[in-house]
Amino acid sequence: MEDGGRSTQWRFAAPNPTLAAAGERSIQKALLQVHACLDERGPRPVIPLSHGDPSSAPSFRTAPEAEEALVAAVRSGEYNGYPTPATGLPARRAVAEYLSRDLPYMISHDDIFLTCGGSQAIETVMSVFGQAGVNILLPMPGYPKHEAHAVFHRMEVRHYNLLPERGWEVDLEAVEALADGNTVAIVITNPNNPCGSVYTYEHLAKIADIASKLGILVIADEVYGHLVYGTTPFVPMGVFGETVPVITLGAISKRWAVPGWRLGWIATCDPKGILRKTKVVDSLRSFVSIISGPATFIQGAIPHIIKNTNDEFYNNIVKLLKETAEICYDAVNEIKCITCPHKPEGSFFMMVKLDVSQLPDICDDVDFCSKLAKEESVILLPGKSLGMGNWLRITFASEPPTLKQGLERVKSFCRRHQSQGFAE
Amino acid sequence: MEDGGRSTQWRFAAPNPTLAAAGERSIQKALLQVHACLDERGPRPVIPLSHGDPSSAPSFRTAPEAEEALVAAVRSGEYNGYPTPATGLPARRAVAEYLSRDLPYMISHDDIFLTCGGSQAIETVMSVFGQAGVNILLPMPGYPKHEAHAVFHRMEVRHYNLLPERGWEVDLEAVEALADGNTVAIVITNPNNPCGSVYTYEHLAKIADIASKLGILVIADEVYGHLVYGTTPFVPMGVFGETVPVITLGAISKRWAVPGWRLGWIATCDPKGILRKTKVVDSLRSFVSIISGPATFIQGAIPHIIKNTNDEFYNNIVKLLKETAEICYDAVNEIKCITCPHKPEGSFFMMVKLDVSQLPDICDDVDFCSKLAKEESVILLPGKSLGMGNWLRITFASEPPTLKQGLERVKSFCRRHQSQGFAE
Repeated sequence: MEDGGRSTQWRFAAPNPTLAAAGERSIQKALLQVHACLDERGPRPVIPLSHGDPSSAPSFRTAPEAEEALVAAVRSGEYNGYPTPATGLPARRAVAEYLSRDLPYMISHDDIFLTCGGSQAIETVMSVFGQAGVNILLPMPGYPKHEAHAVFHRMEVRHYNLLPERGWEVDLEAVEALADGNTVAIVITNPNNPCGSVYTYEHLAKIADIASKLGILVIADEVYGHLVYGTTPFVPMGVFGETVPVITLGAISKRWAVPGWRLGWIATCDPKGILRKTKVVDSLRSFVSIISGPATFIQGAIPHIIKNTNDEFYNNIVKLLKETAEICYDAVNEIKCITCPHKPEGSFFMMVKLDVSQLPDICDDVDFCSKLAKEESVILLPGKSLGMGNWLRITFASEPPTLKQGLERVKSFCRRHQSQGFAE
Repeated sequence: MEDGGRSTQWRFAAPNPTLAAAGERSIQKALLQVHACLDERGPRPVIPLSHGDPSSAPSFRTAPEAEEALVAAVRSGEYNGYPTPATGLPARRAVAEYLSRDLPYMISHDDIFLTCGGSQAIETVMSVFGQAGVNILLPMPGYPKHEAHAVFHRMEVRHYNLLPERGWEVDLEAVEALADGNTVAIVITNPNNPCGSVYTYEHLAKIADIASKLGILVIADEVYGHLVYGTTPFVPMGVFGETVPVITLGAISKRWAVPGWRLGWIATCDPKGILRKTKVVDSLRSFVSIISGPATFIQGAIPHIIKNTNDEFYNNIVKLLKETAEICYDAVNEIKCITCPHKPEGSFFMMVKLDVSQLPDICDDVDFCSKLAKEESVILLPGKSLGMGNWLRITFASEPPTLKQGLERVKSFCRRHQSQGFAE
């Protein structure tokens, strides 16, 4: 490299090559591409139905009690410093009690590791298990951050399918066939992002049995825990902790609609103490000791957030999601070129199948989303970024009138592009 | 493993082995050991002079403007969601402008990556450069988190000495001798933790020259930036960005005394664009895209924190540190078995050398700190945890009367243990 007449060979010129591969696994990257297609001169406001962040919609504003708790923690001046046992212990205890309500046994503060949102919970488990030669089972479609951190930590990723025809259940036969002596864990997401499905008790029990038989861990991403509105109740995977050790990932991000507050957790649901015996707990402690945890005042606020948020808030959010899920499902059913194989029962999302054969000038899901952005100022997520080409992910955590308007635009977009090919 | 009559071979039983090694590099671990020696029935309150967190001392309470900015961001409801360009851009721009004040060129928001405190800034750079076969130069004594993340990311750590007899300057000859074709970077900490030294312009210029000659990057940990009170002014390493690319790590943690707020940054100080050309910037972007950043409301608050904090707050903190550094230095000078080779001019810390030959019943620095905790309820950090056996790190970011009292106890402890060996 020329440098004022002198040639310097910069020795840092080959940064970690796995990072580029990890960075490819990103919803943001796909969304940036779609956003870039927006027509800035478009007369209508942009309607994003692409990512799971309802916080900007007034109806999804977090509980006033949560905001009060956070403000009080900041104003107290007691949570400006690094977390200490005195500040962190009540937070971990509060999370342990919160999770224990739904378990057949109690977990303690020692089973809880607080993280900077759900993302850092994923980062932590992948750091703990990741090493060359090891593989991990991830769902397809899935959440790109699971994959990004697995790849960054040199694990081989093996995908098992979620089966749309069976309500997006785990393909259990595939799991058995994929696993070998180097498989360490299976990741499940329940309630599911991106499919909106909720696993039954029986299905979770089967997953636990298979994992136990294979000698692998279940990592249960339950960031959407309790956001269910169908006939299947939310059952945390930890219920099966006697059968197989479970590491549960959670956060306040979704249930309280505050993903920006960055408070998540890892819970070891393991009444038999296997994770302790196998030193997994030591590894979790080691990793947590070298990273940044959540801000101290959020730790200070969390016992009050959990204690003071009243049922009305929880019920309203679930009621609203039920309503928007219906709106979305009904609207999609009126659009010929997309099909939703399974009505959402939880989370903010549905996956819909795109039939490009009906759209002569559109070649795939990315093309669909790009043209939709340009012509209708609506953002959907191409399924390709979740490992499912010619599918789309739609988020319905949005104000009902906005959601309706957005879906109307999708409908007219599809109708217009269909009619270019053949008469209806 | 027996499991109800059935033997399960758990395949996750060998978590990532580098984690244990990384977790060993921890101040917390050393402090836990020392804390465990405290006599719980001791009549006097514990005085911690061990770690750099002044936030609990009323005199070091953060600026009211900073607290107001944070509360306003929470109350606005605009920062509950994931960070977006709309929320993150003003934050990155504010940090870029703040840092540019001290540079001979302007850096832009594109040069700033916001992190969850200084720790995540360290994690990020080590993730970007870390790979097997690569080595990095770290100071001895140093900051254990640099080492922990370097080790976790499989880099070979090579230590260069800081020279107490030269005011803890970098041993430049050692740096040249240590580096080879696989060296990617040298880390410097300025103002220095744990030595309390501040590097002169001339010394920093020499570091830049050597790094440039070796073709390695300078990673400048400037978390204590502007906390200087001696004769040497604070000069950011980025001033030498024309000579060698510099990656600067910073945070509001120390200058604003809010380490628990978890707002840090990485700044690429690189007017020649070498980090862009060598794809380092792409790697930084990839890593930042897969991790949790700082809470959104802190991002929302930061422009106001920087803009509204008035000079009186900054000046008071520096004045107070000058006072407590003097108290500490003078007190140490009165204690025979410990020596401070260089009066602190910056940060919250000093390193003092322990002469165990004067203390017949004490074998080393860990033993000293353990017995001091037990007998006097004072916590100091054993130098061993920073790579310097038979040294101690003392923090003086404390209320002056508390600090005086703590050092009095250290004095009587030393006197008592000296007298057990020989008459004074």
